[in-house]
Amino acid sequence: MTIDAQRIYDRCQALAAHSEQHDGLTRVFLSPEQRAVNALVLGWMRDAGMTARLDAIGNCVGRYEGTVADAPCLMLGSHLDTVRDAGKYDGMLGVVAAIECVAALDREGTRLPFAVEVVGFADEEGVRFGATLLGSRAVAGTFDAKALDAVDANGMSMRDALAGSGLDAGRIADAARRAGDVLAYAELHIEQGPVLESLGASVGVVTAINGGNRFVVDIGGMAGHAGTVPMRLRRDALAAAAECVLAIEAAAQARSDVVATVGKLEAAPGAVNVIPGHVRFTLDVRAPTDVARIEAAKSIREACEAIARRRGVTWSIEPLWEASTAACESALQRQFAAAVEGEGLPVHVLPSGAGHDGMAIISIAPIGMLFIRCKHGISHNPAEAVDVADVDDGARVLLRFIRNFVPPSGGASVMR
Amino acid sequence: MTIDAQRIYDRCQALAAHSEQHDGLTRVFLSPEQRAVNALVLGWMRDAGMTARLDAIGNCVGRYEGTVADAPCLMLGSHLDTVRDAGKYDGMLGVVAAIECVAALDREGTRLPFAVEVVGFADEEGVRFGATLLGSRAVAGTFDAKALDAVDANGMSMRDALAGSGLDAGRIADAARRAGDVLAYAELHIEQGPVLESLGASVGVVTAINGGNRFVVDIGGMAGHAGTVPMRLRRDALAAAAECVLAIEAAAQARSDVVATVGKLEAAPGAVNVIPGHVRFTLDVRAPTDVARIEAAKSIREACEAIARRRGVTWSIEPLWEASTAACESALQRQFAAAVEGEGLPVHVLPSGAGHDGMAIISIAPIGMLFIRCKHGISHNPAEAVDVADVDDGARVLLRFIRNFVPPSGGASVMR
Repeated sequence: MTIDAQRIYDRCQALAAHSEQHDGLTRVFLSPEQRAVNALVLGWMRDAGMTARLDAIGNCVGRYEGTVADAPCLMLGSHLDTVRDAGKYDGMLGVVAAIECVAALDREGTRLPFAVEVVGFADEEGVRFGATLLGSRAVAGTFDAKALDAVDANGMSMRDALAGSGLDAGRIADAARRAGDVLAYAELHIEQGPVLESLGASVGVVTAINGGNRFVVDIGGMAGHAGTVPMRLRRDALAAAAECVLAIEAAAQARSDVVATVGKLEAAPGAVNVIPGHVRFTLDVRAPTDVARIEAAKSIREACEAIARRRGVTWSIEPLWEASTAACESALQRQFAAAVEGEGLPVHVLPSGAGHDGMAIISIAPIGMLFIRCKHGISHNPAEAVDVADVDDGARVLLRFIRNFVPPSGGASVMR
Repeated sequence: MTIDAQRIYDRCQALAAHSEQHDGLTRVFLSPEQRAVNALVLGWMRDAGMTARLDAIGNCVGRYEGTVADAPCLMLGSHLDTVRDAGKYDGMLGVVAAIECVAALDREGTRLPFAVEVVGFADEEGVRFGATLLGSRAVAGTFDAKALDAVDANGMSMRDALAGSGLDAGRIADAARRAGDVLAYAELHIEQGPVLESLGASVGVVTAINGGNRFVVDIGGMAGHAGTVPMRLRRDALAAAAECVLAIEAAAQARSDVVATVGKLEAAPGAVNVIPGHVRFTLDVRAPTDVARIEAAKSIREACEAIARRRGVTWSIEPLWEASTAACESALQRQFAAAVEGEGLPVHVLPSGAGHDGMAIISIAPIGMLFIRCKHGISHNPAEAVDVADVDDGARVLLRFIRNFVPPSGGASVMR
């Protein structure tokens, strides 16, 4: 047996025991619970034949040397922090599965022509200080020192929290890795969506971490008495917004792998007998390519503009946030697909709608990801669940990927 | 000159001076401000040649005898109470214009083969005790004695408030009029909507006080991550609700004089990056005939049902409130139309989307209404405004209607 999936599963349970809340799982950056988890993870790394250390921002970093000392590495990993009232697998599963793969190599005495490193990132979710990907940004050398002054809900700065964990804010740059040191970054993660379940597949090869845009749309019509204003004289802001919601849905449906969501909508004044005069709603658009995302957003804007003009209402759209796509390197996608096939599993590819550490690491190395099916697509929730059999599939695919890993050629892939 | 429109206008200003708020107009049932207004109105009634009294619920009742003493009356009127932060014409204009018409008859010594009464109803809006049409229900003999125990925001019961205004709750039945005593009820009122303004007309003949239904609709979809759930796997409650909103709009647009409004809509959980799993919205449907209203509501239910089925979301609809149509007597519509023509004005007919005292009086007498254009259709708002020229048109039409009034034949009209 090369992979002990039950041990991976059990270790996820063991990590989940370290939580700030007794009736669920919450573990944030630089917390006492995270220090306890770090001790466990560093121990497991060493048990798997790795040298292990905390880096300058508190990431757990394990290293399994290759056939030549100090060789560039294939970096594996995921994050060890959680959202509030989290599931037990988002992040942790990827760290523990990677350690299990190294343990398998170590058990059989296999050394590869490259080193393998496993990183348990200290912060991906950004719960404590409001800035995400702190661990992977430090590794990528893109950590923004201004974040050190951010304070948590208790008024403690990140600088002081680092000191409380025995870390020196002045040395965070030491966590940064040079591009040449990392051949590629590969992450196993639960899907956090329902696609693999709907396909009946245990694993899927990720094509890209989707880029996204968020907007706020404002529609101004004319409030009026629900009884006295005939339909033909209305400028109903909610009816206009409803048409926009459907146009947004249709724009996404018309494009492969694009998603668009109106998550929040407020109609004012909001009385049963008053025609809404004003509506404000949010729009979230994501796509596996920046071209598709920008094109979808443009088409949505044009549709809303036309609806507003036809209905005689005013409208405006305000950008809130934008993130570029982090495409998975095609060579790594192919290598993951070959490993899936090698394990006798059907190859499915899908984009990641959620963000991951690869969004930061891509600035120093090409990235690849493997998704594991999760129950009903539920994540960021105590109901998050995975099957041990799926964990076994995923970890075996990851191990095969590692054994057969060939560094993607050229710096071009790194510059994408 | 038969009608002094400027005096009507000025008297509306005088009434508006009696308000519980200094920076706007609020005057509720049985308030000190209402007692002050009653004194003014009773005085104007007497100046117009009427006997005048407060009835048992506090309505101002003026009576101008006909050629025969104690003849059945044509009842004119409207209400003297207001909503909070009200306009100056909603209700008051109809009372003051009716007094002006009687003053014109009195000035020229005209007596008619019927008496003319003018009633300034003490409560139509229902602001203080939450129950509407208290004044006209007392006159119609449909006052619900249970309302006497209702309390205002200060905890004072209606019973005690009546006593405070020198009225005896035990004698409210004395305000009731016998059906045979009232030949018809005719009310002049501002439109409170934009129809006459859009037609360029100063007055319009009302066809009916629309009946209405209110519902709450609940839609249950499946919440999910805005990034990870592909469009084809979504059950988005807000997209379903948006389609319902447009189906509701279309169902009303397809039917003459039917209006339907979604005034309040709440999407949960209401986060920019979460697909809405639950939406709750209100539906208000009104129509000038009960048949049209019931048919429109049925068609809306069927449309929502079909949308929910197609989208795989659950849905339910809960009735909140229902009011039957109070149709204006066709003979009175014709007499108003003839009076409009007689004044050289174009005849326009329209339903009333708002409620009026005629909804109560219709149980003892046929009703008719004449609407006056108001600025931008705005009412229940300090911006409520009328042109003196329009008031002149309306009051002249009302006076001609009174002069030429013929009681609608038969009790059948009363029983409708």
